[in-house]
Amino acid sequence: MPAASPFVSDIPAAQAMQAWREACAAAGCPERVPAVQVPVGEAVGRVTAEPVWAHRSSPAFDSAGMDGIAVRAAETVGATETTPVLLSAEAFEVVDTGDPMPPGYDAVVMREHVHRTADGQAELRAAVPPYQHVRSIGEDISATELLLPEGHRLRPVDVAACAAAGATELLVRRRPAVVVIPTGDEIRPVGTEPRPGEILDTNSLMLAAQAREAGCTAAVTPIVPDDPDLITAALREAAVDADLVILVAGSSAGRDDYTARVVAAAGTLAVHGVAVRPGHPVVLGAVAGPAGTPVIGVPGYPVSAALTFDIFAAPLLSALEGAAPRERPSTTARLARKLASVIGSDDWVRVRLGRVGGQVVATPLPRGAGVLTSLVRADGLLVVPAGVEGHHAGAEVRVELLRGLGEIGNTIVAIGSHDLVLDVAASELRATDPLHTLASSNVGSLGGLVALRDGLCHLAGSHLLDPATGEYTLPYVDRILGDDSGIAVVRLVHRDQGLLVAPGNPLGLTGIDDLTRPGLRYVNRQRGAGTRVLLDHELARRGIDPAEVSGYPREEHTHLAVAAAIAAGRADTGMGILAAARAFGLDFVPVAREPYDLVMRTSVLDDELLAPLWELLERPDFQNGVEKLGGYSCAETGRRIR
Amino acid sequence: MPAASPFVSDIPAAQAMQAWREACAAAGCPERVPAVQVPVGEAVGRVTAEPVWAHRSSPAFDSAGMDGIAVRAAETVGATETTPVLLSAEAFEVVDTGDPMPPGYDAVVMREHVHRTADGQAELRAAVPPYQHVRSIGEDISATELLLPEGHRLRPVDVAACAAAGATELLVRRRPAVVVIPTGDEIRPVGTEPRPGEILDTNSLMLAAQAREAGCTAAVTPIVPDDPDLITAALREAAVDADLVILVAGSSAGRDDYTARVVAAAGTLAVHGVAVRPGHPVVLGAVAGPAGTPVIGVPGYPVSAALTFDIFAAPLLSALEGAAPRERPSTTARLARKLASVIGSDDWVRVRLGRVGGQVVATPLPRGAGVLTSLVRADGLLVVPAGVEGHHAGAEVRVELLRGLGEIGNTIVAIGSHDLVLDVAASELRATDPLHTLASSNVGSLGGLVALRDGLCHLAGSHLLDPATGEYTLPYVDRILGDDSGIAVVRLVHRDQGLLVAPGNPLGLTGIDDLTRPGLRYVNRQRGAGTRVLLDHELARRGIDPAEVSGYPREEHTHLAVAAAIAAGRADTGMGILAAARAFGLDFVPVAREPYDLVMRTSVLDDELLAPLWELLERPDFQNGVEKLGGYSCAETGRRIR
Repeated sequence: MPAASPFVSDIPAAQAMQAWREACAAAGCPERVPAVQVPVGEAVGRVTAEPVWAHRSSPAFDSAGMDGIAVRAAETVGATETTPVLLSAEAFEVVDTGDPMPPGYDAVVMREHVHRTADGQAELRAAVPPYQHVRSIGEDISATELLLPEGHRLRPVDVAACAAAGATELLVRRRPAVVVIPTGDEIRPVGTEPRPGEILDTNSLMLAAQAREAGCTAAVTPIVPDDPDLITAALREAAVDADLVILVAGSSAGRDDYTARVVAAAGTLAVHGVAVRPGHPVVLGAVAGPAGTPVIGVPGYPVSAALTFDIFAAPLLSALEGAAPRERPSTTARLARKLASVIGSDDWVRVRLGRVGGQVVATPLPRGAGVLTSLVRADGLLVVPAGVEGHHAGAEVRVELLRGLGEIGNTIVAIGSHDLVLDVAASELRATDPLHTLASSNVGSLGGLVALRDGLCHLAGSHLLDPATGEYTLPYVDRILGDDSGIAVVRLVHRDQGLLVAPGNPLGLTGIDDLTRPGLRYVNRQRGAGTRVLLDHELARRGIDPAEVSGYPREEHTHLAVAAAIAAGRADTGMGILAAARAFGLDFVPVAREPYDLVMRTSVLDDELLAPLWELLERPDFQNGVEKLGGYSCAETGRRIR
Repeated sequence: MPAASPFVSDIPAAQAMQAWREACAAAGCPERVPAVQVPVGEAVGRVTAEPVWAHRSSPAFDSAGMDGIAVRAAETVGATETTPVLLSAEAFEVVDTGDPMPPGYDAVVMREHVHRTADGQAELRAAVPPYQHVRSIGEDISATELLLPEGHRLRPVDVAACAAAGATELLVRRRPAVVVIPTGDEIRPVGTEPRPGEILDTNSLMLAAQAREAGCTAAVTPIVPDDPDLITAALREAAVDADLVILVAGSSAGRDDYTARVVAAAGTLAVHGVAVRPGHPVVLGAVAGPAGTPVIGVPGYPVSAALTFDIFAAPLLSALEGAAPRERPSTTARLARKLASVIGSDDWVRVRLGRVGGQVVATPLPRGAGVLTSLVRADGLLVVPAGVEGHHAGAEVRVELLRGLGEIGNTIVAIGSHDLVLDVAASELRATDPLHTLASSNVGSLGGLVALRDGLCHLAGSHLLDPATGEYTLPYVDRILGDDSGIAVVRLVHRDQGLLVAPGNPLGLTGIDDLTRPGLRYVNRQRGAGTRVLLDHELARRGIDPAEVSGYPREEHTHLAVAAAIAAGRADTGMGILAAARAFGLDFVPVAREPYDLVMRTSVLDDELLAPLWELLERPDFQNGVEKLGGYSCAETGRRIR
């Protein structure tokens, strides 16, 4: 996204919101949606459009607060263990909890404290004060009192109280109506098979769902091609019945300009460009008409679309209902790694959270506006404000929560090299018990061991070969974590590493020796990745200088990124695992079989959080499933090697 | 509710939940509701019944990440400000963000960094690395990767990602079906006019709404009379199609026994009575049948009904969906006053929260199981565990939040004497801006000044007369808050105090002098209440000994409670304000006109939190509205008297 596009400004979010509201007011947009009368039973989730005053007291009569007998307190005076008082059958009445108090009686004695004599008298061994166990008229609600203010979003207890106070209908705000207009020549409806260059309209699906979650009704129009006249017409038509129109641009900036121009043509363009990333090229304005309709143009990148809805559309919709905006809870967390941020924009960073050693640790996820999975996987959102350059590793930061802290506390945090078997394990754990989550972040084997050293994860996934000894994992554990007897290592799996090649292996590669072929385009893994160490080892033992491998300096950070580069024809080969080849329909030339290990503190090994994982690794059905993936052996799965 | 009823046990909540689950399993209740296939667009809010693996990579092709030109990075080597590189029209292609990368090109230069010459060449003043501004195939989602685990409640971003990964339908859990059966001879449907002794069925309304909020479908059967055979038949019928049946007892304990007996007769009674208040007499079990159906019998007191749903039904329903239970966020707060709790039961205390002087302060609300408004007004729930006797005033406690902390921070906290004008002001503030909340707790005038001294509120509402000087409020401020120049006092209103009497004033009371009539039943206010001080003053200046007033020792804590006692015929008269008389349809004999003042720290006076209140007090429409209530004068409203 352009840092300072000549066409798009960088208005701070709060200022943009203010400008939008002012433009809406100037265009005659209603401040609130109209009020409607609904039966109390259907009012949950809606917002009160007037205060609710009690018409009736509740309870509406004095009643017994216990099962027992109704008495006159004055007649019990003097009763003790040694001098009980006897009440004749005419001097009391049996009552159950909730029964109206019989006239003339002013207290209740619990049945457990009453001895009934054979002739029907009641023997009391203690005096009772007036009004004991009597539930007073109006104890809960007094007629004429204020039950709920205007602008209150009704919960189940609220409607029950309103009904108890005599309400059968409530005046609430109509749900705001949101219309989503997808635009773009390359956009295709969800459910169709997109051709190369085409993109499925997942944004409309998401934005309509966000609107419904915000308590609105939502409709999506057919996709409008990249034609300003057609978009203007669609906008004008949608504005007639909508309380908010969302124009979804394709991801092209040419399109963003359409949106701004279209909004200007149809009414008022208040804002084009905000100091928020992702989400920068948002458009805010109002459509002219008898009453005016707010419009937001959200960028086509899915993270931008989702966040700009949250930041701008959601507060506007709350205001239309006259309700306080919904809030996400927040917590403080320690940042797992350094976080750089560009000065001048609020940076919305998605983070994974886990509780490690008693504190919440936040690991930033990929930052791209197009990486929707960064929102899917996020446990929280961290805003680096416009004036801050970023945070150091270990810094305490405030995080808005997208998952509950309890759930986060039940999450096994794995950082390091990533392997598909971790995904399979995560999925199986969850199927066994929805409270068990295994979250893994990919930073390479070496990065994982460093994260473990710094107390940022429970498990580090590692497959690092020590070329000197030919041994895996353990030498690096000593090197990075010290000669620490408090470290345990459990073998997860053995897996095949090999060369990923285009389908049919068009260059006929047979192994490492072929990598020196002139003109071959190799794609490498980053330093610290186990696969990189393996390649270096394989080259070294053949006496091949890395400089002879064309493409050696070109680094990708995951097996899948290597596979993607080959699938896209940007490279001829790279080292990776069979699962990565399969993901992109590539062929695979095996090179070596290596162990993949889980490294942890011994205290974690015995933690009940991990117990379900150790049980899972022993299960034959799990091991069979893993071996069926291809390229894996479970011969040593679950074995503690240190 | 009985402390230790002989019929009801006191099983700890966790143990009761465990016993219920075991009984359900033994009765053959399904562990999960069945899975159903739904279109992605309709899957939001549902729980995945299988892991979601990506079928397709997203993006599905390499694309331009910026608007600009696609180039071959190798051809830009050497370009600098002083030695630009010129690319001929054949050596680049114009691309917009999102466009597929043209074959052969491997980088994008932003249009802002390209100078186009008159003859169509592109001049570059910097070299670009390969893959600059290229969005890679699979950057967001790689085919075959695990997108979502089983047991995940789908959010808008999740379904968008699933759709992008090629899913058009998702396998999710069917919504659990809940059937609510109201029981009780005295229970009447909401919408009918209850006769004395009858109670509206607000519990079913609330429980069905709670079930829907928990993601279920909910149905309510007709009200079943107090007949075990009829209840058993209704339970068996409801169990056929339900995933959970909720039996709602009236508030009589005889009814609770019915429920337990009925559940035992229809299947298995697992639990009758838990160590939770309110909610103690809950019944947990399973109905026998081809598959078995869980059943919960909730007590008839509304707070008990709402809380036992939260504590027992909600986790069971989450488990049926295979999802993690929903969590409430929590915070720490300082307790505004001492909180006693009975050992042996988890005590669920409803609290009001406010941010005063930088910290969150929790004020306990009425504890009765029948006081639903205590849940309506609650900002949080505080659990005093079974083993704890309570907390001291000022203790730091953990509170589950029912409102967002941001909203709570926008709340003006008033503690002290209560007056209807505060309710009117609260309502008006909210109507003006849904972010403004004024929450008032009634502890009497003196209690309010003590709370202000202890930093527990922003405002103390006070109408205390100093008999020695005839002056209101100020002498008490000096006495309790010291000769503190940091205290401000603002007059809210003048109001009439008088004797509340039954309609038509059957005893023909004319004023204070009549209170010594033999046999007259007076109902008094508690010590520390301004109204009590006023009575004492009026008696003293007439030389009347309080002992001459029959009923003088009998204390109620609010104007409305005094009015309720008179309305119920439990007393003949008591002192109070006209609004209280009107609430219960009583007559009113004026005695005195008194000021009602707001006391606060001067720092709070200038706080922007309070500014909207000061503006409101000046508004003529507000003052007119108050005077129309009757018994009020706004002649000095808003005047600062100190």
